[in-house]
Amino acid sequence: MNPQLDELKTRLRDIASLHNAAALLNWDQLTGMPPGGAEARGFQQAVLARIATEKSVDPALGRLIDDLLPYAESLPPDSDDACLIRAAKRDFDKSQHVPPEFVARAYEQIARSYQAWAEARPNNDYAKVLPELERNLELSREYSAFFPGADHVADPLIDDADAGMKAADIQRVFAALRAELVPIVRAITSQPPADDACLKQHFPADAQLAFGKKVAAAIGYDFNRGRMDLSPHPFTTRFSIGDVRITTRVREDDLGDSLFSIIHEAGHAMYEQGVSTALEGLPLASGTSSGVHESQSRTWENLVGRSLPFWQHFYPDLKAAFPGLFDAVPLETFYRAINKVEPSLIRTDADEVTYNLHVMIRFDLELALLEGKLALRDLPEAWNERYRSDLGITPPDNRSGCMQDVHWFGGFVGGAFQGYTLGNILSAQFMEKALQAHPEIPDEMAAGKFSTLHGWLVENIYTHGRKFEPTELVRRVTGSDIQIAPYIRYLKNKYGAIYSL
Amino acid sequence: MNPQLDELKTRLRDIASLHNAAALLNWDQLTGMPPGGAEARGFQQAVLARIATEKSVDPALGRLIDDLLPYAESLPPDSDDACLIRAAKRDFDKSQHVPPEFVARAYEQIARSYQAWAEARPNNDYAKVLPELERNLELSREYSAFFPGADHVADPLIDDADAGMKAADIQRVFAALRAELVPIVRAITSQPPADDACLKQHFPADAQLAFGKKVAAAIGYDFNRGRMDLSPHPFTTRFSIGDVRITTRVREDDLGDSLFSIIHEAGHAMYEQGVSTALEGLPLASGTSSGVHESQSRTWENLVGRSLPFWQHFYPDLKAAFPGLFDAVPLETFYRAINKVEPSLIRTDADEVTYNLHVMIRFDLELALLEGKLALRDLPEAWNERYRSDLGITPPDNRSGCMQDVHWFGGFVGGAFQGYTLGNILSAQFMEKALQAHPEIPDEMAAGKFSTLHGWLVENIYTHGRKFEPTELVRRVTGSDIQIAPYIRYLKNKYGAIYSL
Repeated sequence: MNPQLDELKTRLRDIASLHNAAALLNWDQLTGMPPGGAEARGFQQAVLARIATEKSVDPALGRLIDDLLPYAESLPPDSDDACLIRAAKRDFDKSQHVPPEFVARAYEQIARSYQAWAEARPNNDYAKVLPELERNLELSREYSAFFPGADHVADPLIDDADAGMKAADIQRVFAALRAELVPIVRAITSQPPADDACLKQHFPADAQLAFGKKVAAAIGYDFNRGRMDLSPHPFTTRFSIGDVRITTRVREDDLGDSLFSIIHEAGHAMYEQGVSTALEGLPLASGTSSGVHESQSRTWENLVGRSLPFWQHFYPDLKAAFPGLFDAVPLETFYRAINKVEPSLIRTDADEVTYNLHVMIRFDLELALLEGKLALRDLPEAWNERYRSDLGITPPDNRSGCMQDVHWFGGFVGGAFQGYTLGNILSAQFMEKALQAHPEIPDEMAAGKFSTLHGWLVENIYTHGRKFEPTELVRRVTGSDIQIAPYIRYLKNKYGAIYSL
Repeated sequence: MNPQLDELKTRLRDIASLHNAAALLNWDQLTGMPPGGAEARGFQQAVLARIATEKSVDPALGRLIDDLLPYAESLPPDSDDACLIRAAKRDFDKSQHVPPEFVARAYEQIARSYQAWAEARPNNDYAKVLPELERNLELSREYSAFFPGADHVADPLIDDADAGMKAADIQRVFAALRAELVPIVRAITSQPPADDACLKQHFPADAQLAFGKKVAAAIGYDFNRGRMDLSPHPFTTRFSIGDVRITTRVREDDLGDSLFSIIHEAGHAMYEQGVSTALEGLPLASGTSSGVHESQSRTWENLVGRSLPFWQHFYPDLKAAFPGLFDAVPLETFYRAINKVEPSLIRTDADEVTYNLHVMIRFDLELALLEGKLALRDLPEAWNERYRSDLGITPPDNRSGCMQDVHWFGGFVGGAFQGYTLGNILSAQFMEKALQAHPEIPDEMAAGKFSTLHGWLVENIYTHGRKFEPTELVRRVTGSDIQIAPYIRYLKNKYGAIYSL
């Protein structure tokens, strides 16, 4: 063994342990912490983050990594250790651009802004949160300026979530996607809407959660290495490869809300559970990017969980779980209901076809804000105008408009939205490859077997964790860069059959 | 403000935040962590402990404290800041005696020993765990040797839990207590045993937990700053003054097991919840010693929770919570049942009179082990012999004998048991003072009002946290050192009435 490599791993494991502990503090806060714990919890999280940052920017760590670079060159380039040293180098170099003083200041400002948003949103009070949003935008520009070589002010922010992607690349991909999507949406919405009344009956919470758990376990989420809890907004979090947790919420008048969010989060969690245990405790032991992560949640939620074969298997179970409620509902009706396409106001409730239009609106607006072409005071009107032009509907208030998403208010402006649509695109691109290798997957799904697909995803994507940057991973898996064609083929096939396009 | 004091507080809050995060990792592990998380969790806990230790022994911290000592002298001696600086000095000096290498080694050995005990205990396999126990004893002696001025090898271990107490003091107190206890136990056990059949019916778990929560809230445990979960062994843990959690277990065939453990843990938790918020995040923000902590769990469990006035109020509620089960049970019978005195094998199940005999056996044996007068291979026989002579019963196996408690197997040998009996003694000593100040307390309890007692305890004990060492706190509250007379008076009054002694 290389003693310097051992020291590197010890240092990186220390940093990861602090992040993992902070993740547990956050999970606990969102799932069960008594209200009295909030103030001290925020303080403790800030302390853990600061200590982790101190360790991440320690010049001794940088020297150690530089000393190890020749050793990394001597290893097989795909080996765990070579990938680790390279990733450590990238992470360290990035950390050197950002002064710790800025990290602490940004942490504080974002916590304040989040609080202001949480209070202002129910009252549609954009004016109240505007000064905080101004500061967040300023912080985002300041952060970007730490990376002076960037082509676009958004690039450093995008790079944090989807390494290697640039605003210009994404604009190109999104423009091509949009050109294909708009006619599909128009063709679908010119027909009578699907009847989804069967999803809007009364579904007891306990039965919903039990059915959701059964489905999550069936597709491959391992409850021995995870658990499911309730929280206001569903999320996935990891403390180790052996402990990846999901949350959901339940609306008793809407079957889809909890069920598809459970499958979505299970998809994220299966990615994290599938990372090679050889990477445990190291910074490589998690998903490689926002887009690739979202590709997996969307694969399981949409390509699997809203597919006809899936429900050929699960529909009898669903009927048994909710006695009487689906007696008069043919599978075909149910399938059309869960795939209803309809322009709507809220991104997180949107169907898989219009969803990307929501994302593009946000992406375009945040670029305009960062470029200074749009003033924040004009954001509500710009937002509403885009909803009118792109989706044909006008938000009645800011709560259903530009204040609906936490991202800009609880983080930087920029870098947080593109991953959702990159994920949709990649989900189909990966699935085509999986189907080429295993054409039996749809038949297996109809028989309740998901292990072939799951195994292929583990082997080709999950096991690598962060060993490869997203662009490299996509190339390794698909042989090409990100491509929209498979996603368009998927949508046309699926919705062509449902709507006779 | 004094900028050095600010820096001291920042450093101490960092260390406390690491400990508090580690406490949450531990709570989660014991209440809900999926099995797959165990290995990484142990690693993360070790990392947090090591980073906390590194910060605790940092010479810069020591210099800062020394620089602040003159400032502390200039402050009112009871002020928060003066107490903080003095406590920081004591903690730092203590930490300097113990090499970090030893801390890491001890942590690892104790984790291994705990695991061996957990596996060996169900099989009564003392031989299997003996080598680990030998190492724990050796570690305990090694730890003690870091404090060369000690009068007794156990003193440094005792000092960690009950600062300022020495083996010789405790032996003196215990001998005096024993001389009084033995005749009381003999007098009680010469009479027909109380009938506790009413406690051994079938009590549905949900109803037990609901009733336990109701009682805990009524006596003053604040669920807005805490919560109750299930765990194999009940415990209390704190992450801040605003987040102090308890756990319990439930046996459906034994009402007392869960109910009195809830009240016991609520007592511990009310102590932690009652610390002055001015001390939040600092190392003063928790109970001052093992003995004083146990005095509060025992106050609420026994002096309150097993008192006649308490049940004059709660017995109708209990009857309503378990319909039919107590219809034919007069209050007097129930009261005698929950105060049944009977020599038994298991410390944690023992009644409040014989409990101290269990503790003294362990305390005497651990002193003999540390002194080298008793060899570990002879421990099972020495244990059984003491149970025969002191309690008149012989453990049928090691699981009910010397392997029953985790303490020696999951920690140092020495320092962990004396607090239980010191707590019993102090509970009565404090309560006499409370009753002198507020003779109305028993009548209030009979009316379901606990705020006068709770308020007195907060004002005189809880609010101070660790500001005062236990001996000083006892003097401040009672005007004297620890005294057994109040405890003996309490036992004679209570059991004299029940058993007509």
